Amino acid sequence: MSRVMIKNLGSFIGKKVKVSGWLYSRTSKGKLIFLLIRDGTALVQAIVSRQMLSEEQFNLADKLTQESSLELIGVVREDKRAVGGYEIEVESLRVFQICENYPISPKKHGVEFLLSLQHLWIRSQHISSVLKIRAEIISAARNFLNSRGFYQVDTPILTPFACEGTSTLFEVEYFGEPAYLAQSGQLYNEATCMALGKVYTFGPTFRAEKSRTRRHLMEFWMLEPEMAFVEQEENMVIQEELIYYIVSEVLRNCSNELAILKRDISLLKKVQTPFPRLTYSQVVEILREKGFDIKWGDDFGAPHETAISSLYEKPVFITHYPASIKAFYMQPDFNNPELALCADLIASEGYGEIIGGSQRIHDYDLLKKKITEHHLPIEAYQWYLDLRKYGSVPHSGFGLGLERTVCWICGLSHIRETIAFPRMLDKIYP
Amino acid sequence: MSRVMIKNLGSFIGKKVKVSGWLYSRTSKGKLIFLLIRDGTALVQAIVSRQMLSEEQFNLADKLTQESSLELIGVVREDKRAVGGYEIEVESLRVFQICENYPISPKKHGVEFLLSLQHLWIRSQHISSVLKIRAEIISAARNFLNSRGFYQVDTPILTPFACEGTSTLFEVEYFGEPAYLAQSGQLYNEATCMALGKVYTFGPTFRAEKSRTRRHLMEFWMLEPEMAFVEQEENMVIQEELIYYIVSEVLRNCSNELAILKRDISLLKKVQTPFPRLTYSQVVEILREKGFDIKWGDDFGAPHETAISSLYEKPVFITHYPASIKAFYMQPDFNNPELALCADLIASEGYGEIIGGSQRIHDYDLLKKKITEHHLPIEAYQWYLDLRKYGSVPHSGFGLGLERTVCWICGLSHIRETIAFPRMLDKIYP
Repeated sequence: MSRVMIKNLGSFIGKKVKVSGWLYSRTSKGKLIFLLIRDGTALVQAIVSRQMLSEEQFNLADKLTQESSLELIGVVREDKRAVGGYEIEVESLRVFQICENYPISPKKHGVEFLLSLQHLWIRSQHISSVLKIRAEIISAARNFLNSRGFYQVDTPILTPFACEGTSTLFEVEYFGEPAYLAQSGQLYNEATCMALGKVYTFGPTFRAEKSRTRRHLMEFWMLEPEMAFVEQEENMVIQEELIYYIVSEVLRNCSNELAILKRDISLLKKVQTPFPRLTYSQVVEILREKGFDIKWGDDFGAPHETAISSLYEKPVFITHYPASIKAFYMQPDFNNPELALCADLIASEGYGEIIGGSQRIHDYDLLKKKITEHHLPIEAYQWYLDLRKYGSVPHSGFGLGLERTVCWICGLSHIRETIAFPRMLDKIYP
Repeated sequence: MSRVMIKNLGSFIGKKVKVSGWLYSRTSKGKLIFLLIRDGTALVQAIVSRQMLSEEQFNLADKLTQESSLELIGVVREDKRAVGGYEIEVESLRVFQICENYPISPKKHGVEFLLSLQHLWIRSQHISSVLKIRAEIISAARNFLNSRGFYQVDTPILTPFACEGTSTLFEVEYFGEPAYLAQSGQLYNEATCMALGKVYTFGPTFRAEKSRTRRHLMEFWMLEPEMAFVEQEENMVIQEELIYYIVSEVLRNCSNELAILKRDISLLKKVQTPFPRLTYSQVVEILREKGFDIKWGDDFGAPHETAISSLYEKPVFITHYPASIKAFYMQPDFNNPELALCADLIASEGYGEIIGGSQRIHDYDLLKKKITEHHLPIEAYQWYLDLRKYGSVPHSGFGLGLERTVCWICGLSHIRETIAFPRMLDKIYP
């Protein structure tokens, strides 16, 4: 008999199935024992009765502790009152291991304690639900891009460039030469989009920043699409559609997990396109009216983003930042070169920036000038300049921070819960 | 008018479309100019005639050089003789840039020269076809696993462990502590599969090996599924089905790219399940008969794999290696603990190992004994031992090397062509 995953039990009503998993909790009531079983996909209640099982098997069931591993065979019944809507009448039971002294009980633990047991904490309903939503977000993003003709291209993690200073770079010795862990695959994909048209990379990126905030990890995943022949307006429309698609796929496929996380899905349902747009200058104006001490030319921080986010029930684009506070490769506004043709997307509910994107400079002379103005070494960028020499075209792209997106969609209070083994300033084990 | 990708022209016969791309080649015949255009998805021939265009536009078309960037509007016609089966009758033309002195001409270049221009070489029909097949392989593998209830889990790249020695590890300073770039996510996913049932990681892995071979890169991508409650037999069946699915999806979706690579697809069509299986001992026997100087207990190298591969027209499993030459975590054969419950999958046509997999030890005492026997530091593995303490279950998994799989399916002679920016012993730029 082949195994059925708990989330698929609805297709087996009245049938005998085999389920394998771990005990989540047990209630014994004389002749009946109720086992709540988890198998990674969902929970189901299994009913063990003296009538159906041998004395020995019944007594074994009565000894099961939290996280004991087991396999059972039984008939699936519909029961609207039960967790998940089904229960299993157990006919036979096999125990792999009685778990002794499992350190994480269903009662509340401090987060430091849980972080020290990360390899077990991931089994909790809370963290495992987040991980499943994360997997759905990844899958939705890929399906969206693949269906629109994007090709995945994996850009290197080990890179030779430390052009903008080494202060936030992790350095690696590469056979006698210094190399650095990539903070982005964008520059590489500006090359590959000239080969393949529309591309994306989706891999780990690294930032060695000595910060302890709820929004930063040292190692995080980034989705970075890059598109030849696409200008900033189209770039923003694609971002809106991507975010809308991701949120709607999570709502469609992860209702169980969102319920476990007690996520207010009415707020997620409001994430409809188009998203509001404010220029940087408008935002500065609004912030000053709200009493923030900020002047034109300053960059925004978390409190500013939160204030702007609170104005809308959707993510909001902030466009046209001063070119001086943005990266050297951003296309200046054709009407006002002080401004960059760029946008940051600020998530709703105060979750901060989840996307940064822009049109890229495609003019050789202008890019060369910017590289010089930013005091970057021209020889390290010669290959990048080549892209503007040989068949240059307008192109645009953006980077979506996966963990911040997971944090927002799951409604979490800290980014450390968005990945199975977070890398933080003082945490790298295991 | 919104842009149509060349590979989709078949849906626009008789219609006016906009196509953007780069000039691949040009043939001028008096009143007609034939432009072969690439846009990253495919090639199409565009016909420019004096009748249809202004003198100025016609003359512009006649000046176009290889890799010049352009946009054209015209009507799609079916033409079985044309590349791809369609052509475009140009009505208007816009040129972004006339490309001067493009360094890679259609004639043959030496590979060293091409590698020095990697950021442009990716535009070639050869490399861009490989990259598209690579994207298809990634996508097929993910779809296969997602449809079978696997959850993607991203495991860390920065890890604290150098348990098996640092000789092939890239070291990184992590805020004052040594850390290492991951060679595998397996151990982590042995933890996450106890949380989610069936998981996979698909990320970059690193090996600092001072070797220059056609089969090794310093940075390569690995697909690593891990499954709770799955034993070695089922593990191998999943591998067969995965490989079959990947190959059939490439055959279905990449016929154009396979043709450009001149791949003999009759050989790929023979990749049908089940795959032949040989035990390690049988292989030693066969190799000795073939005259190889090898004795029981030796590991296999590339020439041995090639010899075995030549016996079949399908990939072949080599099972039951001596436990002594395999990793400490492999489950010993329950009937003969000298052997490991493992298998390597050797690709057909001499392409060597593409998968290594095994059942993992789930018994606490046995695993602890193996860790000690391998002189590994027990304290670094305490979290890993915990997985055998709290609800341990039989579990299995495998690792598929993406670049080797791409190399095999594309029929390439060197692994450096399987990724956009290969990291090799003496190559990290750009």
